[in-house]
Amino acid sequence: MLRIVNRFSLPTLRSFSSRITIDNINQHIRTADYAVRGEVVIRANEIDAEMKKGKKFPFDSLLYCNVGNPQAICQKPITFLREVLCITSWPEVAEKHPEMFHPDAIQRAKELLAANPGGSGAYSQTAGVGKVLEDVAAYITKRDGFPADPKNIFLTNGASQGIQDCLKLLIDKPTDCILIPIPQYPLYSASIHVFGGQYEPYYLNEKNDWALDPADIEKSIKSARAKGLTVKAIAAVNPGNPTGKCFTRENIEDICKICARENIVIMADEVYQENIYRPGDKFISFKKVMCELGLNCQMMSFHSTSKGYWGECGRRGGYVELVNFPDDVRAELYKLLSICCCSNVDGQYTMDVMINPPKPGDASYELFQKEKNGILESLKVRAKKLSTALNKLDGVSCLSVDGALYTYFRLTMPPKAIEEAKKQGRAADAMYCMDLLNEAGVVCVPGSGFGQEEGTYHVRSTILPPENEIDQVVERMNNFHKKWMARYQ
Amino acid sequence: MLRIVNRFSLPTLRSFSSRITIDNINQHIRTADYAVRGEVVIRANEIDAEMKKGKKFPFDSLLYCNVGNPQAICQKPITFLREVLCITSWPEVAEKHPEMFHPDAIQRAKELLAANPGGSGAYSQTAGVGKVLEDVAAYITKRDGFPADPKNIFLTNGASQGIQDCLKLLIDKPTDCILIPIPQYPLYSASIHVFGGQYEPYYLNEKNDWALDPADIEKSIKSARAKGLTVKAIAAVNPGNPTGKCFTRENIEDICKICARENIVIMADEVYQENIYRPGDKFISFKKVMCELGLNCQMMSFHSTSKGYWGECGRRGGYVELVNFPDDVRAELYKLLSICCCSNVDGQYTMDVMINPPKPGDASYELFQKEKNGILESLKVRAKKLSTALNKLDGVSCLSVDGALYTYFRLTMPPKAIEEAKKQGRAADAMYCMDLLNEAGVVCVPGSGFGQEEGTYHVRSTILPPENEIDQVVERMNNFHKKWMARYQ
Repeated sequence: MLRIVNRFSLPTLRSFSSRITIDNINQHIRTADYAVRGEVVIRANEIDAEMKKGKKFPFDSLLYCNVGNPQAICQKPITFLREVLCITSWPEVAEKHPEMFHPDAIQRAKELLAANPGGSGAYSQTAGVGKVLEDVAAYITKRDGFPADPKNIFLTNGASQGIQDCLKLLIDKPTDCILIPIPQYPLYSASIHVFGGQYEPYYLNEKNDWALDPADIEKSIKSARAKGLTVKAIAAVNPGNPTGKCFTRENIEDICKICARENIVIMADEVYQENIYRPGDKFISFKKVMCELGLNCQMMSFHSTSKGYWGECGRRGGYVELVNFPDDVRAELYKLLSICCCSNVDGQYTMDVMINPPKPGDASYELFQKEKNGILESLKVRAKKLSTALNKLDGVSCLSVDGALYTYFRLTMPPKAIEEAKKQGRAADAMYCMDLLNEAGVVCVPGSGFGQEEGTYHVRSTILPPENEIDQVVERMNNFHKKWMARYQ
Repeated sequence: MLRIVNRFSLPTLRSFSSRITIDNINQHIRTADYAVRGEVVIRANEIDAEMKKGKKFPFDSLLYCNVGNPQAICQKPITFLREVLCITSWPEVAEKHPEMFHPDAIQRAKELLAANPGGSGAYSQTAGVGKVLEDVAAYITKRDGFPADPKNIFLTNGASQGIQDCLKLLIDKPTDCILIPIPQYPLYSASIHVFGGQYEPYYLNEKNDWALDPADIEKSIKSARAKGLTVKAIAAVNPGNPTGKCFTRENIEDICKICARENIVIMADEVYQENIYRPGDKFISFKKVMCELGLNCQMMSFHSTSKGYWGECGRRGGYVELVNFPDDVRAELYKLLSICCCSNVDGQYTMDVMINPPKPGDASYELFQKEKNGILESLKVRAKKLSTALNKLDGVSCLSVDGALYTYFRLTMPPKAIEEAKKQGRAADAMYCMDLLNEAGVVCVPGSGFGQEEGTYHVRSTILPPENEIDQVVERMNNFHKKWMARYQ
């Protein structure tokens, strides 16, 4: 056997391959930045492990404000959903003890099981279980007052997978460009980078409540085109992550008009559509505005089971709706998704329950409303508490949190801190966040991970810690911040 | 507002973007082939929908032999797993009625819930829930007799996602090349194509029970290098899809030796490691063989919850183990996976149960063994039944099914059929499968989707229909085949 092998092993053959090292892997991955689960979070995980082994720190617990992962920090799941998933996981449970469940949960579980032959243990069709696609289309139709077609819906493992696959579909040439907001959720910049495209920032205006200035989008288009790039799409996140702000209707109209005129796809990241806190505010989708304007932009609209009052992050449920794309393009997305068979079916079931929750008269309705309102009211309280407290700190400016799950507060950075950070080879806000973790046990993400105007410094904190812990977050941040600022005076 | 917009809308701006059509999407996606969910399956879905609306066909039901999706065609899930998932979905159920569950299921559910703060509704850490990573590492260690480290394990949404992300990691330049077997599972060719790399086939030898000839791998390496390609990895699927055959230990040794010498990463697709039917045969992993040979190849080994006797396809659970990669490369895979947060947690829990099932003495052990053996025994029976029947057909040659879930039988194609297929613009085996569907209601996948030696024609059929349906499959194939062959004499 070895003789055969050796017959071909000439030196000329050997020279062509070398072991895999950091230098010959996909360099687009290597050079992509992804801060949300970056340095600070990795250090937090280390501290957590060390604490469990008995090591002492200047705090007795970590307070996680880094990621929108509500159930990890005590948010209770919506009972109706969990009853449904309990039954779809092991249908016998409802045969043996139907009295344990609300009848509408049993009914829904039966429908979902019947809709995918084999239930949650079987692959669904590529785009998802037919009933779920129909329910999603009905939800969008009702929400917007304009029809959605199930054939344009694709269920994905979280919105992240949908966004990634759509970017993969759109980016053809190295000169293909996506406009992304600054600040942005870094899924966009990282994925575009990994897929070998380009991005061009447009800036949200902090002085104007992180609103959008259409002139700035025009400027970005012009700037990208001046570099020879083809602007294929714009990512628009509403309500905003990390800004915690909602676009005005005028903002949305501006984007639709520009994109219609310039043939730019709107990637409408609307995963926070249920998270709106300012009294009187109501979510308006990009699709609704576009339809009302009578425009026919191409649009991809994303939703997720991870956010809202559901917070079912671990399920990885999501959908994308394609609007105004030709059939053959849709078929190519279908093929791309086929390669991984389908998204996880429990995540699809979760999406179904989320966009078609109990209605007045249903057995679960009252409990569902109570749980839903409880979570949303509490989020409002926490949003207010955190932003008010932060605003009292010297050198911190924090806008009200009107939507999503975050405050993106601004630090007036002392020049000495900037100098010290330079020495450490870090952005100054990254140094701030690392010190905040090491000295006070609060986990936040530096603004440099989301992007910010040159010379400004921010920190993103979620509003998610439970109400009693928010006081602790505020107290620890307060103490830390004063000491830290004094250190660099 | 419109004035501002118009200020920039010069004709020179306008010319740069056009609407998204099939011609300006990612052309790598457009030109990728993916037959497993291709033309035949799409037509089957149409027929299914038409039948439901009352349309008549020459058969009263579709028989699905196209995809390894056992629960969709009546395989019962393993009870222990479903009890665990029932409890993790809604823990109250076990508090109210603990007597409904086996105590070890309650215990496992508690451990899994505790291991991910917030349970299955919360994001896990990027690579997965710590306990699951440890359990997977313990499983591999025990299976191979060589240590596995949890830090090298990543949990993914099915093996497919893991394979895709690893390919994405490895492919840097358009000249980077992956060796793939012919016949192959088209996940490989499609994904490599989508990520802009190249693949070079090596041929499995049908005359020698689809075994591997190391000289053929050497030839492929040489051929790729002669084209200026860098061979970075080899995909090796064992037990084989679609071949239904297991590599000999010698085959595995050959691959390890060549890859060690030539610095080629082994992508060991071992998702069928539980599906071995030939008496006396036992699964041997690539890692075990490599370690026993004292080699230090770089290796990525994949596993899935979808196959084996579990058949939990809809959960999208999977893992990859990285072997002999430097820390900084591993960190880049971690970053890539971070962008989508984590794989679905129920899929992770399923993986935990699968690789750490009930042990002798556990309350569920007896039932578990009974279910496991029942499924595996029945698969053996069906494999035998199908291959025996197919072999009796004129112009069909079908090897025994020793592993995995498929038979890949060969058709001696009448020249007139080849001619007719050419007219239809189809491969002759694709025409055969389409006719088999339209005339007999049996859904199979043509060999042209998996690759085959020039001038040979195959069909892949799963062995999954329940025992009583296998008879029907055989009968319908038999009748169809005779008529079809007569048509082209």
